[in-house]
Amino acid sequence: MMKIHVVKIGGHLINDENLLNFCLESFCKLKGYKILIHGGGKKVNDLSDKMGIEKKIVRGRRITNKETLDIVVMTYAGIINKNIVAKLQSYQCNALGLSGADGNCIKSFIRKDDHIDYGYVGDIIADKSINTDIIKFLLEIDIIPVFCSVTHNGKGILLNTNADTIASCIAISLSKYYKVELHFCFEKKGVLRNIKDSESFYKKINFSLFQKIKKDHTIINHGMIPKLENAFFALKNGVTKVSIGLPSHILKSHDLNKTVLCL
Amino acid sequence: MMKIHVVKIGGHLINDENLLNFCLESFCKLKGYKILIHGGGKKVNDLSDKMGIEKKIVRGRRITNKETLDIVVMTYAGIINKNIVAKLQSYQCNALGLSGADGNCIKSFIRKDDHIDYGYVGDIIADKSINTDIIKFLLEIDIIPVFCSVTHNGKGILLNTNADTIASCIAISLSKYYKVELHFCFEKKGVLRNIKDSESFYKKINFSLFQKIKKDHTIINHGMIPKLENAFFALKNGVTKVSIGLPSHILKSHDLNKTVLCL
Repeated sequence: MMKIHVVKIGGHLINDENLLNFCLESFCKLKGYKILIHGGGKKVNDLSDKMGIEKKIVRGRRITNKETLDIVVMTYAGIINKNIVAKLQSYQCNALGLSGADGNCIKSFIRKDDHIDYGYVGDIIADKSINTDIIKFLLEIDIIPVFCSVTHNGKGILLNTNADTIASCIAISLSKYYKVELHFCFEKKGVLRNIKDSESFYKKINFSLFQKIKKDHTIINHGMIPKLENAFFALKNGVTKVSIGLPSHILKSHDLNKTVLCL
Repeated sequence: MMKIHVVKIGGHLINDENLLNFCLESFCKLKGYKILIHGGGKKVNDLSDKMGIEKKIVRGRRITNKETLDIVVMTYAGIINKNIVAKLQSYQCNALGLSGADGNCIKSFIRKDDHIDYGYVGDIIADKSINTDIIKFLLEIDIIPVFCSVTHNGKGILLNTNADTIASCIAISLSKYYKVELHFCFEKKGVLRNIKDSESFYKKINFSLFQKIKKDHTIINHGMIPKLENAFFALKNGVTKVSIGLPSHILKSHDLNKTVLCL
């Protein structure tokens, strides 16, 4: 089985030009099949502020009304995706940017919730939402797919989908065909024990430790729990390795700036 | 030789939801290979206004500074491209949106001019700028490429490129492999003799009539001359048919709402 690297980049990394460049250079040097998935960092907030659009957060989740969806699409599928692709191309990496609508790569359904109307938010399911045929096709002609976190519902509606979930679902769905390694890259060395101490990262988290951490509420920065849920879900569904850390760790397997997850 | 339809849509058509939907539905019904290229309509102006960015036009050409480029990329490659793709997908047309950076499809160079600095504007050359390999590959796996008018210079810089020129260059470069028909669609029935009379369109313009029209300054709405230049250049360089008119004309060859160009 061929190996494939599925690399998710997000957090402040997206907004830090030097770190982003370093990350993309490292990504280019990865040998063999690879896929990049990116989040949007804080650019959506910046643009919403500029355009005077109010941000609405309910229970820690952004509500995506039509105006916000437009900004999400402009930012994720437009400026961030195309600039990443252009940079990768300048490093001789034949990248091709995709939303979930393109080639019908990722089909989602509007989130249903009895209590909250999330608006234009799309959820996906690992074994149903990902069009592996087109992804495999692109990989086989040496194209590097670069996914933004915009999907579609097949009925003409674009939807905002969590980038970690996309990374995890793509990784799982490709694990039928390839040996998949999933790397989450951001601006920290790994999953921190103490959010104020950047050196306090776990070297390793297994599933029972994760359960304990969750129960004890000892964790950590906001958004890390769903990221870890996605990561463990991937491990339980065919993905070989999952790690979280600085971009440096994707290229060098012995690099210690990461948290390795295991079952 | 297989036939291919290269369809450029632009003008107010992009901003008129009903006309756009009708156009995309007609496009979907076209049999065989096809490619869509879209402009940006007035959405860039709307967004620039919202964000308080001043529009700078010199000799009828928009100057693309960095702020304007960002808006162009957000609008063309982001919101317009992805919404068109999602709509086409909803009509069971397996569209895939592309900027010139994606898959290195269209490589341009920054416009050089002794008198005006156009900023982030990219020019292209028919037989050098278009990566026909990747386009052919996508067509052969039944993907419908949908191009926005953003290109790249291969050095990490995105550039704003005229959509008519992109359509014409793609049409020419594919004419080595396919019998190419190039259709320019907008909200008018064709090239108008009198801009105030929507019925005053030419049924046919040949090259010598075009020269006369140009010389006499009898033409027409702004931007039509470069469109016709592109169109005749395509006819002179291998493209079989070129027409300009309402979206209805692309599907029905006997439809009269068009201007046919010939040498």
